[in-house]
Amino acid sequence: MIGVCVLGISGSVGQSSLKVLRSFPESFRLTAFSVHSNLKIAETLIEEFRPEVVCLTSESHLGVWGDKKGGTRIVYGEQGLNEIVSLSSVDTVVTAIVGAAGAIPTITAIKAKKKIAIANKETLVTFGPYINRLVKECGVSMVPVDSEHNALFQLLEKEDRSNIKAITLTASGGSFRDLPIEDLPNVSIKQALNHPTWSMGPKITVDSAGLVNKGLEVIEAHFLFGFSYDEIEVVIHPQSLTHGIIETLDGACLQYTSAPDMIFPVAHALFYPNKTPKLLAEKKPFSWKELTFRDPDPARYPALALAFQAGRTGGSAPAVFNAANEVAVQLFLEEKIPFIQIPRIIEDALNEIPNTFPQDWQGFLEKDNETRLSVNKKYSKGVVV
Amino acid sequence: MIGVCVLGISGSVGQSSLKVLRSFPESFRLTAFSVHSNLKIAETLIEEFRPEVVCLTSESHLGVWGDKKGGTRIVYGEQGLNEIVSLSSVDTVVTAIVGAAGAIPTITAIKAKKKIAIANKETLVTFGPYINRLVKECGVSMVPVDSEHNALFQLLEKEDRSNIKAITLTASGGSFRDLPIEDLPNVSIKQALNHPTWSMGPKITVDSAGLVNKGLEVIEAHFLFGFSYDEIEVVIHPQSLTHGIIETLDGACLQYTSAPDMIFPVAHALFYPNKTPKLLAEKKPFSWKELTFRDPDPARYPALALAFQAGRTGGSAPAVFNAANEVAVQLFLEEKIPFIQIPRIIEDALNEIPNTFPQDWQGFLEKDNETRLSVNKKYSKGVVV
Repeated sequence: MIGVCVLGISGSVGQSSLKVLRSFPESFRLTAFSVHSNLKIAETLIEEFRPEVVCLTSESHLGVWGDKKGGTRIVYGEQGLNEIVSLSSVDTVVTAIVGAAGAIPTITAIKAKKKIAIANKETLVTFGPYINRLVKECGVSMVPVDSEHNALFQLLEKEDRSNIKAITLTASGGSFRDLPIEDLPNVSIKQALNHPTWSMGPKITVDSAGLVNKGLEVIEAHFLFGFSYDEIEVVIHPQSLTHGIIETLDGACLQYTSAPDMIFPVAHALFYPNKTPKLLAEKKPFSWKELTFRDPDPARYPALALAFQAGRTGGSAPAVFNAANEVAVQLFLEEKIPFIQIPRIIEDALNEIPNTFPQDWQGFLEKDNETRLSVNKKYSKGVVV
Repeated sequence: MIGVCVLGISGSVGQSSLKVLRSFPESFRLTAFSVHSNLKIAETLIEEFRPEVVCLTSESHLGVWGDKKGGTRIVYGEQGLNEIVSLSSVDTVVTAIVGAAGAIPTITAIKAKKKIAIANKETLVTFGPYINRLVKECGVSMVPVDSEHNALFQLLEKEDRSNIKAITLTASGGSFRDLPIEDLPNVSIKQALNHPTWSMGPKITVDSAGLVNKGLEVIEAHFLFGFSYDEIEVVIHPQSLTHGIIETLDGACLQYTSAPDMIFPVAHALFYPNKTPKLLAEKKPFSWKELTFRDPDPARYPALALAFQAGRTGGSAPAVFNAANEVAVQLFLEEKIPFIQIPRIIEDALNEIPNTFPQDWQGFLEKDNETRLSVNKKYSKGVVV
């Protein structure tokens, strides 16, 4: 029986984790979880799973709930997150809090030698060199939950590294994949949030629309798998059925293809190093009839090249890329800037913020903060279009 | 240095074998080969590779060439084939002679404990139970050269058997894939020989047009990999880029995709158990943009269901399926029967010829002969349409 702690239970990865836990009650126990502020979800899940501890990351509910709910202890905020990932009854931590905020408890969990099912991109994008050193030192295993990285993780287990020429991440192409390129300056928030394949939170859906999300995933893949940026490719694949591709030295390719349901990678990450033992009840019928692939158009997706640039620069540049984007997306969602300003803000930040090579996570976090302050100062009043 | 004997050097697999041998002269030596009757090809290759022995399978040239050509010994006919596959300097035999005739020297090669790169479908289709027993007894390895089986062979090495739900063979759909179904009764030989993807001999091209070839491959896959017929699927994939698919228990799929060039599977089979060590010089640029898949229409391809039926019946039924088809294709190529008569002849033979479960290869060969005689007797004068 594996004790699971899910950070960010109300998001799409959190919900998929619950489906897996419900499908395999003999294998997993939900020992702890965090939820940002949704008391209703928290209450229902406490009733259903009777976890040991629950963390409400927004501390504003302290007065409402106090520190106990039935037999479940309630904790709050960053300290609460660090507490639940360190519980002795927790074996595996699913890190599904979006943004740089999810990284600190992930670091705590690694130090507590928990297995990490990583769904928080920023942990590796912002703190990559530090995290990789820490994972090695602590001897923990880190299994990616993102569908693309999970597919690649599974493929890479099947092929000798010396025989691999390149890895390819597939991208749906996002909400504006088929929009005439001249309409991009005038897209609305509603249009941006209308993702063609995946139902996800607003931040990641906007990220997908500009391939910023794929850029973050390229950097994440670099840190997860150790491939150089010349060995990582991105291809637009509108059906979102093939999630990862590896090209072998003789010129052939292995594709990992499945229904676009997060339950596949979540189940794999939770069961790893064992195999998912049966067909998942929630599995959609497998009915791919067409798989198409095309190169991303740099004019439509300027942020992708910026991600490769930041990755190749190394040091704090990926952290700057990510922080500048987080602020820019927030400004877009507040209708302060147009969609096409997002990559311009990222580019500006990469040019403005001096690059450093921090040795600890605080150094990366400082760069993250510096970038947020700088971008907010410059753009929070909006831009003249 | 691996000594290679290629049976059927002038066909497409033979020619691909030569390309691999020329690309890796430090790894392989062409020790022996057979050619049916093309003296020009034989002469050029004797000059280029200086093999130890060459077999002309048509004995009509005995008087022209005698038993020596430069330093190369010349042998003839079935006895000659058995001789070259048994040479002590031969390590690997590529069995690329089409039809049941290729099976006897393959059996000899297995008994001589040579590694078999098998490109002769009929060996397994006609003699499957016997061959599997023999391969096990002799402890030889048998690597398929057919692009589909080679892809599956490679995929199956990467996944635990207990985790596999089904294997899928892809089919181009052949020359009549997109023809209005009501035009099938009137197709010409020329139309049948116009294969959309692969350039191959006339027999196999006609086989592809009716999915008889895929039916033979389903039976071959059963004997090669041990899957039941319920676990083997066929999908029409017009681009011929994905060659094999395995479906895992959790509902995901692994696809093996490469340019449609026989050099990939031939190189793999020759190097096995080692990896092809470098990009093949002749590799076509990898440029798949679209992969489509659809279920085969039973009305267009009635022979496919007959192959599954013969496979499930077992015993001599696959041998009858294959022999009836060989005669029927020959009659079609002689313009004695229309194309759509081929599956009818196969069905008729499966119904007419009593099924047996032979213990030795002679028993299967008798059934093969019985079928040929019966079909020829009944149909060699043509049919009334």
